[in-house]
Formats: sequence, C-alpha cells, structure tokens
Amino acid sequence: LSSPEPPRRGRPRDPEVERRIREAAISVYADVGWSGFNIERVAKEASVGKGSVYLRWTSASQLLLEAFETELRFVDENIDTGTLRGDLEALAHQIAHVYEGDHGRAYLRMRIEAHSIPGFDQYFEFQQAQMAASRKIVRRAVHRGELPADTRVTMLLDVLSGGLLVHSLTTPRLLVSAKSQRQYPSDLVDFILRAAEAGKSRAAG
Amino acid sequence: LSSPEPPRRGRPRDPEVERRIREAAISVYADVGWSGFNIERVAKEASVGKGSVYLRWTSASQLLLEAFETELRFVDENIDTGTLRGDLEALAHQIAHVYEGDHGRAYLRMRIEAHSIPGFDQYFEFQQAQMAASRKIVRRAVHRGELPADTRVTMLLDVLSGGLLVHSLTTPRLLVSAKSQRQYPSDLVDFILRAAEAGKSRAAG
Repeated sequence: LSSPEPPRRGRPRDPEVERRIREAAISVYADVGWSGFNIERVAKEASVGKGSVYLRWTSASQLLLEAFETELRFVDENIDTGTLRGDLEALAHQIAHVYEGDHGRAYLRMRIEAHSIPGFDQYFEFQQAQMAASRKIVRRAVHRGELPADTRVTMLLDVLSGGLLVHSLTTPRLLVSAKSQRQYPSDLVDFILRAAEAGKSRAAG
Repeated sequence: LSSPEPPRRGRPRDPEVERRIREAAISVYADVGWSGFNIERVAKEASVGKGSVYLRWTSASQLLLEAFETELRFVDENIDTGTLRGDLEALAHQIAHVYEGDHGRAYLRMRIEAHSIPGFDQYFEFQQAQMAASRKIVRRAVHRGELPADTRVTMLLDVLSGGLLVHSLTTPRLLVSAKSQRQYPSDLVDFILRAAEAGKSRAAG
C-alpha cells in the first residue's frame, strides 16, 4: 500500500486576499506594535477568517516579516534608467511611497522593536540587501563619471531617505495637494544632485 | 483663626535627581512605549522612591512631556554664531546629540504615539516652536545674502535632521569611533551647504 499524501498546507488561491492580509498586518502593527500584534487581530482587520491566515502563515512573526519584505520594499533591485537623476527619482518615489500612511509608522516601530521580535534577524538582512541595492545605484553613477570618485555614497543616501522620512512625518498629508506630494521627491533629488555635482566641479577645479 | 497653609507640593531639592528621573522616563518610554509607561517603572529605573517622583510630577504624561521638552531639545533658541555654517554646525551637533542612545528611539516612538497620550497637543506646540527656531537660522542667512532668496528652507532642514536621523538608526554606535561620530554632523553640513550655495550661483548666473 502506498502511504497517503501528507496533508497539504494549501495557500489561498487569491493573491488579492494575500495582499489584503499583509496590508492588514502592517496596519495592525502600526497601531499596536509587536506587544499587541496577533493573527486574530489581523484576520479581523482584513475581514477574513483566522483559518485563512493560518493556511498561509504559521506564526505572527512570519506573517509580519513577509508583509514587511513584500509591502515595505524601498528599492526595486532592477532600477536602472541609464542616468543618475532617473535612478534617484525612481528610488525617491519608491521611498516616499513606502513612508505613506500606515507604512511609515510601521517602519518606525520596526526600527525600534525589531530586535525583540522572534526571527527578525532576517529583517536586518533584508535591510542590508536594500541598502546594498541603493548603494549600487550611486556607485554606478560614479563609474559613469556622473559623480566624483570621492562621493560619500552612504551620506547621499542618508540624506535622500532621511529627507523623505522627516517630510512624511512633519507634513500632514491632508494639508498638501497630491501634486506637491508627487513633486517633493523630485525636488529633493534636484537638491541632492546640486550638492553631489558641486563636489565634482570642486574635485575637477 | 487663620486657615493653615495649603499643603505644599514640594520639589526635590536636588536638580540632579530631577534630571535622573527625566532620563529614566525617556529610557522607560523608549523601551515600552506609552502602553507600558508608568511612574512606578520610572522610579525603579531612576533608583528613587515613587514618592520622590509624585512630589514633583502629578501624572505620568506630565512627567513624560517635561522630560521630552527638557532632554530632547533639538534647537537652542540662542544659536547665533554670525555665519550660516557656524549656526548649522551647532544645530547639527545638537540634533545628533538628541538622537543618541535611548533618545532616538524615544523620539521615534513619540512621533508614532503622541496623538494617543493625554496632554500631548502641547508636545506638538513644542515641536512647532522648535521648527520655527531652526527656520529662523536659515532665514537669517538668506537675509545676510549667504543663501539665495528662493532657498527651500524647510527642505534644507528636512535633509539636515533626516540625514542625522537615518545615520543614527543605521550606524551601530559601537562600530564607529567617537571621532567619526563627531565628524558626521560637520560633513553633512558641508554637503548641504554645497547644495544650497550651488542654488545661489545658479540664481546669480
């Protein structure tokens, strides 16, 4: 007799439901932090049964980690528009998008709490990979001669993501138009490029 | 018969004890957030009796608010060195100092939670006053002709405080020397001034 197939841990077929559950996880986490985070709450927020969540994720921390890695991705590793300005604008818009709404608060909480969440060493690895991907963008520009060889790559990126973070924290979204909301990342890239390129003329002069 | 004096709510005589209690409040808050914050915990952390805390502060939220306003002060309103570079360096070092250690995590938590803490409308007023004080520094430089009239004052300050925030979050303090720790704010000011001054030559050209 052949043994029966092992019970299959099925996945919900609908990727839209998966996404809704991940978004609900981020939203619950933004509100209550790790100390109040559990699958019951997430299921309620996503308007699905607890079983649908357990079908796909075995623990609260696994769900939260996957939600972060999927929905709070700052850097698309394929950004390569051919120019530094194009790449930085794409990066800036992605970062601004991550900081919008619940995601910004969830991200800040994670910066404070990650060390106390089981399995979240993996989150630091994800963060490292994201930082490496954004450094690659700037290094490529140095290679092409768009920026001087002594460019402070990490500082340039601190300023880009930090400027967007502080802007999102201090600008109540309802008070600014969607247009100025879209404009800020581009203007910030202009500002940063002026600094970086001034470094170039100084190095050449 | 004259009525007896009302019971005096004395203050602990020792300002060093007051400071220790405020620092303990920030440290406890950084660890557990508002949901776990109470005077008992703060007293334990500060190694003082609960009575010493209640002598001076009537509620947990009042203590926390005062701790923030005193110990997490980003801008000394008297900064006025005579030059933009001097003023921004003084500002950058103050901000970097605020983000050090527990203070940075406490600040981020407050950005997430302030709306749910009783009495913390006052904290937003404090923040507004701090932002106004730093804008004054940049506006003064515009007046002196050190920066072009169309300088994006708020963006310049977003970039300064944001760069320092991201740097403090991503740089494990134990891995960098005290010297490079002191150097970063000055280098960041150089970077930002290059951008702001490039704006000037562009406006003049």
